[in-house]
Amino acid sequence: MSRARNQHEQPHGYRLGVCFYPEQWPRDRWESYARQMRALGLTYVRVGDFSWSDIEPRPGVFTWAWLDEAIDVLASESLQVVIATPTAAPPPWLTKAYPEVRPVDVHGRRLRGGSRRHCDLASPDYRREAARIAGAFARRYGIHPAVAGWQIDNELGDHGTGRSYSPAALQGFRGWLEHRYREVARLNEAWGARFWGQQYTDWDEIDLPNLTAGGPNPAHSLDFYRYSSDLVAEFLSEHATIIRAHSPSRWVTHNFMRLCDQFDHYPASAPLDVVTWDSYPTGGVEYSPLPPEEKARWARTGEPDLVSVNHDLYRGMKPGGHWVMEQQAGQINWAPSNPAPANGAVDLWTAQTWAHGGACTSYFRWRASTIGQELTHSGLLRHDETLDRGAIEIATSALDRESMVDERRHVVLLHDYESLWVYDEQPQSAGASYWSQFMLFYSALRGLGIDVDIRHPDDDLAGYRLIVAPALQLIDADRARRLTRWSKKARMVFGPRTGFRDRSGNVHSTGQPGPLEPLLGCRLRNTDAMPPQVTTLAAGHEVQIWAESYRVTRGDVVVAYDDGPFRGTAAVIRSGSCLTIGAWSTTLVRDLLATELAALGIPTVDLPKGVRRVSTRTREIWLNFNDTPTRTPGGLIVDPVSWCIERKRKD
Amino acid sequence: MSRARNQHEQPHGYRLGVCFYPEQWPRDRWESYARQMRALGLTYVRVGDFSWSDIEPRPGVFTWAWLDEAIDVLASESLQVVIATPTAAPPPWLTKAYPEVRPVDVHGRRLRGGSRRHCDLASPDYRREAARIAGAFARRYGIHPAVAGWQIDNELGDHGTGRSYSPAALQGFRGWLEHRYREVARLNEAWGARFWGQQYTDWDEIDLPNLTAGGPNPAHSLDFYRYSSDLVAEFLSEHATIIRAHSPSRWVTHNFMRLCDQFDHYPASAPLDVVTWDSYPTGGVEYSPLPPEEKARWARTGEPDLVSVNHDLYRGMKPGGHWVMEQQAGQINWAPSNPAPANGAVDLWTAQTWAHGGACTSYFRWRASTIGQELTHSGLLRHDETLDRGAIEIATSALDRESMVDERRHVVLLHDYESLWVYDEQPQSAGASYWSQFMLFYSALRGLGIDVDIRHPDDDLAGYRLIVAPALQLIDADRARRLTRWSKKARMVFGPRTGFRDRSGNVHSTGQPGPLEPLLGCRLRNTDAMPPQVTTLAAGHEVQIWAESYRVTRGDVVVAYDDGPFRGTAAVIRSGSCLTIGAWSTTLVRDLLATELAALGIPTVDLPKGVRRVSTRTREIWLNFNDTPTRTPGGLIVDPVSWCIERKRKD
Amino acid sequence: MSRARNQHEQPHGYRLGVCFYPEQWPRDRWESYARQMRALGLTYVRVGDFSWSDIEPRPGVFTWAWLDEAIDVLASESLQVVIATPTAAPPPWLTKAYPEVRPVDVHGRRLRGGSRRHCDLASPDYRREAARIAGAFARRYGIHPAVAGWQIDNELGDHGTGRSYSPAALQGFRGWLEHRYREVARLNEAWGARFWGQQYTDWDEIDLPNLTAGGPNPAHSLDFYRYSSDLVAEFLSEHATIIRAHSPSRWVTHNFMRLCDQFDHYPASAPLDVVTWDSYPTGGVEYSPLPPEEKARWARTGEPDLVSVNHDLYRGMKPGGHWVMEQQAGQINWAPSNPAPANGAVDLWTAQTWAHGGACTSYFRWRASTIGQELTHSGLLRHDETLDRGAIEIATSALDRESMVDERRHVVLLHDYESLWVYDEQPQSAGASYWSQFMLFYSALRGLGIDVDIRHPDDDLAGYRLIVAPALQLIDADRARRLTRWSKKARMVFGPRTGFRDRSGNVHSTGQPGPLEPLLGCRLRNTDAMPPQVTTLAAGHEVQIWAESYRVTRGDVVVAYDDGPFRGTAAVIRSGSCLTIGAWSTTLVRDLLATELAALGIPTVDLPKGVRRVSTRTREIWLNFNDTPTRTPGGLIVDPVSWCIERKRKD
Repeated sequence: MSRARNQHEQPHGYRLGVCFYPEQWPRDRWESYARQMRALGLTYVRVGDFSWSDIEPRPGVFTWAWLDEAIDVLASESLQVVIATPTAAPPPWLTKAYPEVRPVDVHGRRLRGGSRRHCDLASPDYRREAARIAGAFARRYGIHPAVAGWQIDNELGDHGTGRSYSPAALQGFRGWLEHRYREVARLNEAWGARFWGQQYTDWDEIDLPNLTAGGPNPAHSLDFYRYSSDLVAEFLSEHATIIRAHSPSRWVTHNFMRLCDQFDHYPASAPLDVVTWDSYPTGGVEYSPLPPEEKARWARTGEPDLVSVNHDLYRGMKPGGHWVMEQQAGQINWAPSNPAPANGAVDLWTAQTWAHGGACTSYFRWRASTIGQELTHSGLLRHDETLDRGAIEIATSALDRESMVDERRHVVLLHDYESLWVYDEQPQSAGASYWSQFMLFYSALRGLGIDVDIRHPDDDLAGYRLIVAPALQLIDADRARRLTRWSKKARMVFGPRTGFRDRSGNVHSTGQPGPLEPLLGCRLRNTDAMPPQVTTLAAGHEVQIWAESYRVTRGDVVVAYDDGPFRGTAAVIRSGSCLTIGAWSTTLVRDLLATELAALGIPTVDLPKGVRRVSTRTREIWLNFNDTPTRTPGGLIVDPVSWCIERKRKD
Repeated sequence: MSRARNQHEQPHGYRLGVCFYPEQWPRDRWESYARQMRALGLTYVRVGDFSWSDIEPRPGVFTWAWLDEAIDVLASESLQVVIATPTAAPPPWLTKAYPEVRPVDVHGRRLRGGSRRHCDLASPDYRREAARIAGAFARRYGIHPAVAGWQIDNELGDHGTGRSYSPAALQGFRGWLEHRYREVARLNEAWGARFWGQQYTDWDEIDLPNLTAGGPNPAHSLDFYRYSSDLVAEFLSEHATIIRAHSPSRWVTHNFMRLCDQFDHYPASAPLDVVTWDSYPTGGVEYSPLPPEEKARWARTGEPDLVSVNHDLYRGMKPGGHWVMEQQAGQINWAPSNPAPANGAVDLWTAQTWAHGGACTSYFRWRASTIGQELTHSGLLRHDETLDRGAIEIATSALDRESMVDERRHVVLLHDYESLWVYDEQPQSAGASYWSQFMLFYSALRGLGIDVDIRHPDDDLAGYRLIVAPALQLIDADRARRLTRWSKKARMVFGPRTGFRDRSGNVHSTGQPGPLEPLLGCRLRNTDAMPPQVTTLAAGHEVQIWAESYRVTRGDVVVAYDDGPFRGTAAVIRSGSCLTIGAWSTTLVRDLLATELAALGIPTVDLPKGVRRVSTRTREIWLNFNDTPTRTPGGLIVDPVSWCIERKRKD
Repeated sequence: MSRARNQHEQPHGYRLGVCFYPEQWPRDRWESYARQMRALGLTYVRVGDFSWSDIEPRPGVFTWAWLDEAIDVLASESLQVVIATPTAAPPPWLTKAYPEVRPVDVHGRRLRGGSRRHCDLASPDYRREAARIAGAFARRYGIHPAVAGWQIDNELGDHGTGRSYSPAALQGFRGWLEHRYREVARLNEAWGARFWGQQYTDWDEIDLPNLTAGGPNPAHSLDFYRYSSDLVAEFLSEHATIIRAHSPSRWVTHNFMRLCDQFDHYPASAPLDVVTWDSYPTGGVEYSPLPPEEKARWARTGEPDLVSVNHDLYRGMKPGGHWVMEQQAGQINWAPSNPAPANGAVDLWTAQTWAHGGACTSYFRWRASTIGQELTHSGLLRHDETLDRGAIEIATSALDRESMVDERRHVVLLHDYESLWVYDEQPQSAGASYWSQFMLFYSALRGLGIDVDIRHPDDDLAGYRLIVAPALQLIDADRARRLTRWSKKARMVFGPRTGFRDRSGNVHSTGQPGPLEPLLGCRLRNTDAMPPQVTTLAAGHEVQIWAESYRVTRGDVVVAYDDGPFRGTAAVIRSGSCLTIGAWSTTLVRDLLATELAALGIPTVDLPKGVRRVSTRTREIWLNFNDTPTRTPGGLIVDPVSWCIERKRKD
């Protein structure tokens, strides 16, 4: 996977920042805000996102003065500015002039303006206008000394707009398919279009995969998701190029979202210099598939692994440290319920970002908005300009803001967006999803105190000692070859559905795991997609949601099912350095991973729920998400919703 | 708030009535029906609603004969007739001739005829045709001696049609905005349109606030709700004028619905002489946010406070006594489940209306329909013309039908539809809604045996000793000034979110409670929107759904939080005569209100669940909604699902 | 009800078959597949469904060669071929050429191709093209010696496409209404169109009954369902005629679905020779209204009665034995969760079909698909061509494949699709549905060991000793007369809502049970549609969901209610040979039916849950759906998920 050159080295040390909307506040407050920001120890201030109608109130008429001034005010306090281009919200005059810039949703409805993300990346009008305004920003501020970097757009794919079902998208999709397959016959073959008799004779017979009576062909959907994803990557690349043309030596980023499935973030992040994401731990819990009692438990802190998985994911996309571009610093506004974070949570999240290798945490937002859709969202300042609880935690934090050493970790989890798409397109079990299955393995490792990287399966995996592939559903010959090569140098663990499909999203004619069979030493016999309240047992462990039964081809049965239709058949197979786990079981997965780690001599601990550890050569960072104190093996007391650092003893 | 002159005094005494559809029954049954009605003691008979296609079967062709005759038959038994204009259901020929009379729903779909309320109040065609047919009715029956009054249309806003998202509505909305703001710049300011960069340069850039990707601007929505509400008020005013022009000395009403949010009922009721509402207690329970076990408990009686709150609400809109225009008298047909009411429930509801100052209860409907959408709905007669259980309860009721004395009550709750709209537009907590928060205070007072009025916050509140504002989210300087004036003469209690927003729906730049801060002596620190299963404690009381923590500016802390993120901070503040309650807690609110009442020397009782009392100078009316008997403090036994009157002892 | 002549006698004996898609597999596998099919003992192979785009890849260009060859290969192993015409999935070129072949859903959205059932039976284009391709198939293979029969289309009505809301459907509906009513005035009368003032003056004022604000008139809906249903019957009749013209001596069928409500299957099956249905027991459980713990219990076997009710239903449509055309033989793919069937389940389902008089079970599908929407669905072969668990059960089954004697049963249940439509159009109680109420009686009988037929109420019922009408809501004078005649010769049991409506869907002016009142000896007093958690008691039995209270006119009260609003009133009435049951109570219904059977001298047994018996003169077939063994009264042990045959002793 090619990576853009990192044009701008980030400074050493862990920095803080904030998202600021000067246009929403009286001019006479700016100086004092800037002073307060500096006093809080902030380095970066993001401005400009959603400012299009303030900068270009009428077509071609630009009012830069206020932003010029705002940047100067910030600069006067030595704050560095991150400029976000405002393309996430075209102004009403633009929406009116070019109605087709607005996307069409999956129900076939053309969405309206008046909100944000009314942007169809497939619309030539949108693309032309977006490039124009981004260019204007880049020219205006490209060499401003206070400008440290750029954020392209804002949260691409939010509100489900990563995929537009518009006529423009249809036209684009057809062209994309023609480019990919050249001949319709090859598309028919790749899609298995003879299934249900949908073989095409011409490109213009192809429709979008929504509004079908009985569900679309998954290969059709997969290609549409690829096309939509390519639009995102193309958009980011185009805008990175525009910005770099006018803004030398500044870095370019985009703020991605938590566990987002709308596009492939690997090619999307390729044209960027820095990867950032927006962290809202309480909202993450509300929208997670956790059971109600777990949601209640983590309501005020977020669930630790559901936060950190994003750190490990986005850190893996670029060297040099990722950012949290928007860090919740109080209650949010967009979840069904929006509880007040626990005392200490903002500091804990900030420390967690740092511990997981982040370079900066930038809080959202400076002052709580008095207008618009987010007026119930918190800021570092309250509506009345008093310092909110989050700001006080930042000001009083014990975090020393030294960079974490980005040490190579021993363990890596493999993640692939295409596998995610086909998984969630046909989950087959009500409780199953790609991310849930990924978290089954991720949380098991974190609960054992293991620090992990997350990488794309086609990346260079040299140096890892344990490679865990929780849910690599898409395996073709090339990928199988690469994985086989790594298996010579590392132990590997594979989860359910590994290798179920080829690149087109079809099943291998040899069945699961397709070309991985020589490596895994087994073939799938059957799957069991258990509904709620149905479970089975494997070596005494409760299995729910999903079970796979294997036929051994050259491996050994490690675990067999104790009951149910698969009784006596293999649930877990070992073949050489590879372990294949077919049973969805929290305790079984944990035990098996612990055994692998022990065999590798990688030490583990048995962490209580809510307690997590990050380990470096010299230190251990302990993070306690519980509302009770915890004691580390070394004897330190970690307060509720708090963290501490323990120096390692030299034995 | 201006009120139309009450053109027609209602007679003394509590009357009964019924809704009758002569056109649905054979001509030869009418005389016997009229006799039966009279024998049941009914005074009023409503006719005409939905009769448009029977009266004007083809454009301009009128067939009045049947209705002439029906009214004469009713008159011959000394029954008085209420004529409902038939505009709630345009005939198919009209829908075909003017397809745009039909509204567009929030999903952008043009609704069809064949049902009812396929009426777009923004459609000039609809308005013209509706005025035409209403005028024809008024001319025909305006001075008929049997005609006592008029009902304009039927249940405006039902089926969510209070807001149409049609091109006509868009055009009307733009005109309304232009009239309100004059300049686009003022609209941008009022809407905080710079949020997410949606500043307008021309009126025709403004769209309706539906079908947005990420949610509309709440100020945009608020104005659209105001515009839609104004259409309702304008429609009622227009039709009242039409009717009065031809029908001197008759009163004009409209039948509103239970806890309806589709428009502001204060201006809507202004042009009316009498306010009526339609009472379906079992349906109200089914659609309430009560937990499942409470829904089961009240399935056959309705929840007492969810019924009476409407009496107190609608009684407060006009002097002279409100009506129940449609009173459920058996099972209904439109809830998910439609249980048989308990024995005694019809009599109990009738007595409750009387006790809460109603002037008339009119039952829905005479005979159960054998046709159409409501053929599973009960009537006073069954399908087979036998007297149904409800009719027998009416016939055998002990109610003496004397008017209740409309005594001035000591306690008033303030209610404002604009606060309702902004509350429910951004509830922030899954369990929160305006009406739920309102009911938290209303039920606490009713459970203490307190009789209350409900009034608009900008009304004349002279004479009240305790003013309770459960959820006045919209507070501007004028309203703050008025409330401050009343605080000199009464104690006041304010609920959560009081003064969170200004008239535009934006947050005050000084934060909550904005201009009320000098009065309340506190400022909002933080909100806590708790998801299900999360609670906190305040002075030992369980708090759920919502908690606010305050900073004292000139008040005293009455209650502080015991735990959670707000531990030790203020939950309840007293400042002078004002108490501000930030914690959503049934028991705490009850205790605090009891304390206020005690301080005022207003006696309270501790009523069991399901038992309610209405008190006058000389009498106490006891209402028992439970399926077990209860004993009053005076020693009377009140049967299950029954009521009784106790004379007060002169001490 | 007229029945088409049975043109082709089915052979004696119970046969097996399979659904095969040769076009999805390499040519070089066909011979070995055919050999394997023969080795498994299969007789029939269905081919051709969904093959349109493979047979006619471009308009008018036919590629028959592959199908010719496939049929020859199958014939070479003495397999008989069932050809399914491919009209369930028009090719993309056709969808593009005639966009209106695609249906419009109830939300008004034109559906897209790329899936299946994008077919609007109201579209003249679709009908012409479908007839053309069906004719081409019939001409090509009509006299092929290996072709035993034909399946028209596939699963009509699947994905809710039985009703299209398209302009073509509107036009067709208007014509259908004009033909039915001749004069608009008669339609107005039949529909009770004066309700809510919707009287029509011209046919072109009539709209489809979707997208209404407040729900459509149920009589309007009923006629639209009839019209849509007539389209299905007309389509099947048209295609049967086309096929027979070219394929003498072959039988014609269609594969219906489980408990399908999309059309009236009696007229739809009339033009067929054989009736078949598609049996997916685990999916049936997932989509059933069973409570969660019951769903979990039957997750791996299906619920026995929810399977067999379809056998009894479809067997009753044609003499000579019905088929299961598609029998689940492993996990499916279309339910929320898709568990692995229990060991033995495939054999048990196959035996159950046989025991219920089926002539053939044809498994779905030969090899698990590697492409398309169903790639997670099992086959007899796995993806990797190994024999899957289901195939092994078939190969090792003890079933002797003798035909069951189709003995006349003593007990019949009456079923009417029009009653189903009006029931589910206005269920009135959240827990009520036509099929749930039908199953209340069906399961009670099956639990007593009673074998039943299911017949249309207007059928010849001679010979039955007990006639049970669980939910005949539609009763007109003719039907009442017929039922009264049968009451002279049999005992009869009627369930709730019997005779609530006339043919138009309106309520009888005499109320329920309308013209059945002389027979049933009672009239409805009241209904009680209980919400969840609300119950009442009748003779000690718990009643939930629905209760009816009766007034006796010439009958006797058998059971009265113990409590609630109906306390002391009649729940069950006997009048002569007829019993009317108004209380929805599993135990009460069972006890009452047991009493009736005892009175008739029909022996019953008390079967445990999950155990079912089919009885002939000489044998008893025992079916055990439990995961524990059971013992028959005769002392045989029946293994878990298994069956056995017990010879009856001659006493």
